[in-house]
Amino acid sequence: MKATIMYAAGDVRVESVPDPRIVSENDAIVRITRACICGSDLWPYKEMERTPGGRRMGHEFIGIVEERGKSVRSVKKGDLVVAPFAWSDGTCEFCQQGLHTSCLHGGFWGGAELDGGQGEAVRCPQADGTLVRLPVGPDDELMPSLLTLSDVMGTGHHGAVCARVTDGSRLVVIGDGAVGLCAVIAAKRLGAEQIILMGRHADRIALAKAFGATDIVSERGEDGTTRVRELTGGLGAHSVIECVGTKQAMVTAATVVRAGGAIGRLGVPHYEGIPTTAKNFFDNVTVSGGPAPARAYIEELMPDILAGRIEPGRVFDRVIGLDDVPDGYRAMNDREAIKVMIAF
Amino acid sequence: MKATIMYAAGDVRVESVPDPRIVSENDAIVRITRACICGSDLWPYKEMERTPGGRRMGHEFIGIVEERGKSVRSVKKGDLVVAPFAWSDGTCEFCQQGLHTSCLHGGFWGGAELDGGQGEAVRCPQADGTLVRLPVGPDDELMPSLLTLSDVMGTGHHGAVCARVTDGSRLVVIGDGAVGLCAVIAAKRLGAEQIILMGRHADRIALAKAFGATDIVSERGEDGTTRVRELTGGLGAHSVIECVGTKQAMVTAATVVRAGGAIGRLGVPHYEGIPTTAKNFFDNVTVSGGPAPARAYIEELMPDILAGRIEPGRVFDRVIGLDDVPDGYRAMNDREAIKVMIAF
Repeated sequence: MKATIMYAAGDVRVESVPDPRIVSENDAIVRITRACICGSDLWPYKEMERTPGGRRMGHEFIGIVEERGKSVRSVKKGDLVVAPFAWSDGTCEFCQQGLHTSCLHGGFWGGAELDGGQGEAVRCPQADGTLVRLPVGPDDELMPSLLTLSDVMGTGHHGAVCARVTDGSRLVVIGDGAVGLCAVIAAKRLGAEQIILMGRHADRIALAKAFGATDIVSERGEDGTTRVRELTGGLGAHSVIECVGTKQAMVTAATVVRAGGAIGRLGVPHYEGIPTTAKNFFDNVTVSGGPAPARAYIEELMPDILAGRIEPGRVFDRVIGLDDVPDGYRAMNDREAIKVMIAF
Repeated sequence: MKATIMYAAGDVRVESVPDPRIVSENDAIVRITRACICGSDLWPYKEMERTPGGRRMGHEFIGIVEERGKSVRSVKKGDLVVAPFAWSDGTCEFCQQGLHTSCLHGGFWGGAELDGGQGEAVRCPQADGTLVRLPVGPDDELMPSLLTLSDVMGTGHHGAVCARVTDGSRLVVIGDGAVGLCAVIAAKRLGAEQIILMGRHADRIALAKAFGATDIVSERGEDGTTRVRELTGGLGAHSVIECVGTKQAMVTAATVVRAGGAIGRLGVPHYEGIPTTAKNFFDNVTVSGGPAPARAYIEELMPDILAGRIEPGRVFDRVIGLDDVPDGYRAMNDREAIKVMIAF
């Protein structure tokens, strides 16, 4: 089969690799029908050192079960399924508390050992704990939105949960990428009264407004903080969702949050420690977040997608075939595209 | 009247100062009957630069209302009251959410402008929001425990709340000072199953065990972390309460917490940012805490003290008169005493 391999920063190729086969009785083989490129894939695209043998890429996909190991019960051949970006057994103490990303017997797609989502098929370990059946056909018009359950919509929701968004919250979302946009959807869904998006790209801002953003702040640094303070009655935001991962973004989060407020970190940290301020301690600010246990949120979010109440699939503004994945990386990295879907 | 003034690190004096008088109609004058020295007073005792005019000290006290401003309703002359370490109006949006330390019209005792608790009397601003009547006489044997409601018991409880201690939690308390010991009490009260105290002073360890600590770890650094990991089945603690404020203590907190766990910070930070690890992000660790809204917890904790279910007053191992306050600072700083009470 064909699959995407990254060899170094900027060096992404689609190449022939061995077809996946059942290894454990908990495995399933999934033939992929939709996948996508993640904002987090852009970090290695910018930074990865040359790696002999490369690294298989992709962690967001929908597909059809082709074969299952002896002990798999929850899915069967022919089922259309969505996979979260971490696979997990669904039964360990972390899974039971809803933290599937820390599963004692789980892991992540791709790398050197396992298939990635940006390929024609994957071997899925822990299939019973990982895969969730979709109650629609593989060409349903809801495919883009259902695909976001694998990562970005669950991640945006996780940020809103970690930032303790609730009825009436005043919220700041830092970053206008696909995760930031999904955080806007999630926050509105949870009842936020004011949703301030910090971003500066016209197309993304338009989508954020369509999703429920009430205010846009395009200034950065101190000017951005000043503007948010003005918009929040001088006190700052109850909740901040940080969707970038840079030190500057975290410093902004730390300066726009109000006393007693919470910051939900989603961006993969490219900084040491947590760059909060001394005032954040005296203000009793909470910092939470991390990789979303997307698996935990699928059942909660899917009904809203099926009913059309949320449309996170609108973050996809480009659809490509597998052979065009290298150009898809380039387009996202150049901000030509918000998020790229791969259709098989 | 006489009051405690700190002029510089190590330079604490008891001197004559003007008697307090009603300034605002919300004020009350409280004649102090019990007060104490706080672990946080030791930071300026170690570090304060020489300050002309000095800084009035003390923020924990019980006393008798001597006079009240025109609009004060909740306390009257002759009432025995306890004051939390921050005064607050009790009505602003932060007070309503239980974050009295961020009161929009509140503040802290002592400094250059206001009386401190380590003196014969104080002017109490926002008396209705701040003072809480005690249903016992001024010489009741429960005075030491009731005095801890002004700070250390509420602070220990705050740490347990921020660290999300609940039924069955495995908890680490870092630091064996009075706050750490009260954190042990608070955690046991909230149902923690395992309470690991990290400390190395025999008298404090004995008290911690009496309060409910199940394990003691006296090693520091990597050895301490290894020991905690062993004691917690290899996974680390659900909850960590950090009661020191040094970078080393926070690094220990960051390395003993389990995935999905929470760190409650109580020690005044003597470090930049929050020195967590990259792993803490991938583990979805939450960092919370700050100065305790002690006022918010008084009604919750007082019944347990009155009923004898908790005995935080046992942290006081020395009682002195006002004139001996300078030696009380020295004794606490030299770790001769855990916590010093001042009886008037």
